[in-house]
Amino acid sequence: MKEKKARLDLLFNPRSAAVFGASDNPAKLGFYVMSSLNGCGFRGPVYPINPGQSEVMGRPAYPDLEQIPGPVDLVVVCVPGRNLPEIIRQCSAKGVKGLVVISSGFSEIDDPSGAGLQTEITDLANRAGLPMIGPNTFGFVNAHLALNATFCPEFLQAEAPRTGLPGHVALVSQSGGVAGIVVNRAYQENVRLSKVIGLGNRCNLDFPDLLDYLDNDEQTKVVCLYIEGIDRPDRLLKSAVGRSKPVVAYKAGQWARSDQASKSHTGTMAGRHEIYQGLFRQLGFVAVNSCEELLDTAKVLSLAAKPLGRAVAVLSAQAGPALAASDVLEAGGLTIPAFSGSTKKTIEELLPPLSLRSNPVDLAFAWYNLDLTKKIVDTLVQDPGIGSIMFMAVYGSANIGVVKTVTAVLLEAARIKPVVACLSAPFGLWDRDIAVLEQGGAPNYPTPERAALALANMVNYYG
Amino acid sequence: MKEKKARLDLLFNPRSAAVFGASDNPAKLGFYVMSSLNGCGFRGPVYPINPGQSEVMGRPAYPDLEQIPGPVDLVVVCVPGRNLPEIIRQCSAKGVKGLVVISSGFSEIDDPSGAGLQTEITDLANRAGLPMIGPNTFGFVNAHLALNATFCPEFLQAEAPRTGLPGHVALVSQSGGVAGIVVNRAYQENVRLSKVIGLGNRCNLDFPDLLDYLDNDEQTKVVCLYIEGIDRPDRLLKSAVGRSKPVVAYKAGQWARSDQASKSHTGTMAGRHEIYQGLFRQLGFVAVNSCEELLDTAKVLSLAAKPLGRAVAVLSAQAGPALAASDVLEAGGLTIPAFSGSTKKTIEELLPPLSLRSNPVDLAFAWYNLDLTKKIVDTLVQDPGIGSIMFMAVYGSANIGVVKTVTAVLLEAARIKPVVACLSAPFGLWDRDIAVLEQGGAPNYPTPERAALALANMVNYYG
Repeated sequence: MKEKKARLDLLFNPRSAAVFGASDNPAKLGFYVMSSLNGCGFRGPVYPINPGQSEVMGRPAYPDLEQIPGPVDLVVVCVPGRNLPEIIRQCSAKGVKGLVVISSGFSEIDDPSGAGLQTEITDLANRAGLPMIGPNTFGFVNAHLALNATFCPEFLQAEAPRTGLPGHVALVSQSGGVAGIVVNRAYQENVRLSKVIGLGNRCNLDFPDLLDYLDNDEQTKVVCLYIEGIDRPDRLLKSAVGRSKPVVAYKAGQWARSDQASKSHTGTMAGRHEIYQGLFRQLGFVAVNSCEELLDTAKVLSLAAKPLGRAVAVLSAQAGPALAASDVLEAGGLTIPAFSGSTKKTIEELLPPLSLRSNPVDLAFAWYNLDLTKKIVDTLVQDPGIGSIMFMAVYGSANIGVVKTVTAVLLEAARIKPVVACLSAPFGLWDRDIAVLEQGGAPNYPTPERAALALANMVNYYG
Repeated sequence: MKEKKARLDLLFNPRSAAVFGASDNPAKLGFYVMSSLNGCGFRGPVYPINPGQSEVMGRPAYPDLEQIPGPVDLVVVCVPGRNLPEIIRQCSAKGVKGLVVISSGFSEIDDPSGAGLQTEITDLANRAGLPMIGPNTFGFVNAHLALNATFCPEFLQAEAPRTGLPGHVALVSQSGGVAGIVVNRAYQENVRLSKVIGLGNRCNLDFPDLLDYLDNDEQTKVVCLYIEGIDRPDRLLKSAVGRSKPVVAYKAGQWARSDQASKSHTGTMAGRHEIYQGLFRQLGFVAVNSCEELLDTAKVLSLAAKPLGRAVAVLSAQAGPALAASDVLEAGGLTIPAFSGSTKKTIEELLPPLSLRSNPVDLAFAWYNLDLTKKIVDTLVQDPGIGSIMFMAVYGSANIGVVKTVTAVLLEAARIKPVVACLSAPFGLWDRDIAVLEQGGAPNYPTPERAALALANMVNYYG
């Protein structure tokens, strides 16, 4: 176990890399792999391997691994699959620590030769003790090392408008397409990633291996899985013992056509939806139903404090969004209890009888008074009967001035209890304030329903 | 009936406006109402009314309506409610065509004086034949007239990054907060609006009146409703006869706490969720469960061709997103039939045996070949067994070059059958291409599940 962790540490944290199929030609995947490795900030040397060229992207190219002068930790392959046996032999001889096989043409194709080749390279990699991502994968990203070992340079955007920093959400995906959608969306919605891993055909690295590894990965707080089919639920169940981090699982292929399609796509039987839902319950996974819910749930789990029970205080500057959120919270099994004791007393003293003063609370025009908002939030933070806080407000130019101070109030509360926000404003008005709020521990969502569902998923996870 | 339509036409299409409570002070709502009326492109004169000032925003201010030299079609009120009786008398004398009462303090407050005042002004407005939006409303927007009669200048953004033009989705909301969230989101997601109307306390204009009017409004193709409670379902049912445009309805307040909160907020009993769902079925409304689903559904209904039945062809450049979409389509009652006849033959000739060639279709690497993508899409357009088409692809720098041409293929198909897209790319890469695609009739969504749900809602609407 420890040995495996050490091996995966070396795979994900290489000091140098080499690319079979590196190319100057933008029609080749090897061009994009080189761009990803060179253009995202990775500091180690990146060696192109291409017997037909003396140079690739201004760097000397080598005909094979052996000729490379320095040590090579990571090898990325985008030449045709038939070369893999020879490449694995070279890796073994060179002391390579990890392999990413982007090439396709293995068990995912109809032709039985593909499955044969896959068995061959799996045996070779296993015998060499070489951890291998793929084949038939986009590769992986380790954001904390600025390492992008994929053919998607955009998977690691140092200059993304709202996401300068790597984060703590890891994504392990059985589909490159879904990973692409989730990563694109993560940048748009400020969900910060630690690692993105494309499992591909899962020859010697599968879900249980990655879950074990990520549970011990200091840079990961939450693991997101996109699953099409699992071959060995017993391995998954065994590996779950003693695991400590939340896992959010999205399983596609529950209906007839998609189930059938999944079988062809990944070579495994996707299986009945109910079986997977039962498995996820046993595993303590948070089961979600869409790419959006996957990210929304991971966001709150990676940022917010742990909730103290199922009771939520719902505060809103406008009543409508509070109703919409309350529906989703109650459908998710959370409670919105009427306030009692000193909380009830304080809020009734602070708010005029015009508005909803119990739970949900309609702050109405009172929320322009920040001192008052702060007092209400503080009261709720101190109330042991309240497990978490939702805060909603719609801003426009008439009230945009208060965002910074509201944010400060919420950030203080978020240190003690989960605070989930739905602060909405016209396009482009205040992205920076939201980034500050989220990095301080209070995730923000564009609609009340998404905020409420994420909070319900988190509370249900902690039970 | 015709008379009422004519009156509402004048309310929503004024040639001039006056603002009671107009102000230079950014702490007053009257400042933002003036900014909205002046700053969004409305061409008629806008007269400030404020007895304490000789000028507001550089324009001469008047002490009352009578002193205004020219005719006044629309009056917007943001002075305290007790002034309303006198204001309505002035409106009547001046020949005003419509009234927006932003002021609060009517039936929504605990104090019975509020309800009394509301009855008084309702009677006055009814007797004067004066259509009145509110009280306790944010106002309304008529995007096609560049008229923003609200206190939210951002509700009509001429320079929004992706939405230069007004569109064909009308929103009628019982909550200003929800309207704010929906409008903010509409700009972010390129859902183009025709009118935004805040019902407020619904004194003499309520859902049935607005539905009647919008069904005849040339600039509106789809009506979105946000509903907290309906007092007179019989009026709604009566008014539904002969209505021709799709209505998408979002009802909040289905659970215990939100139901109770809704009662206080709008002064009506929100009522049991099931009763509303039954009512919506009778009315032929598309019932949705979130702000996001409201907009997503309205988008496809306002842009796409009518579907020819429940069968969907699912095309995807990557298999995973096709599975995710298929789940949602089948859960929504749509079918993803295996291809037959000449469609089956053509697609099997065009695609290699490597990939899913039935339905869903995994275009895999074949989609770089646009001629081939075009042939497959054309075949599906001609197949009478296929009612609509979903197309999904994830782009990065390796394949961004094909977006324009894929878009052209989809636009051609969208003229004949509904085409719903999930084209995903890293932040900021291609917003303009997507705007072209959508304005051409093929709505795009950021995730496969949202695209599929919108399509399912549309197909179920047309039955």
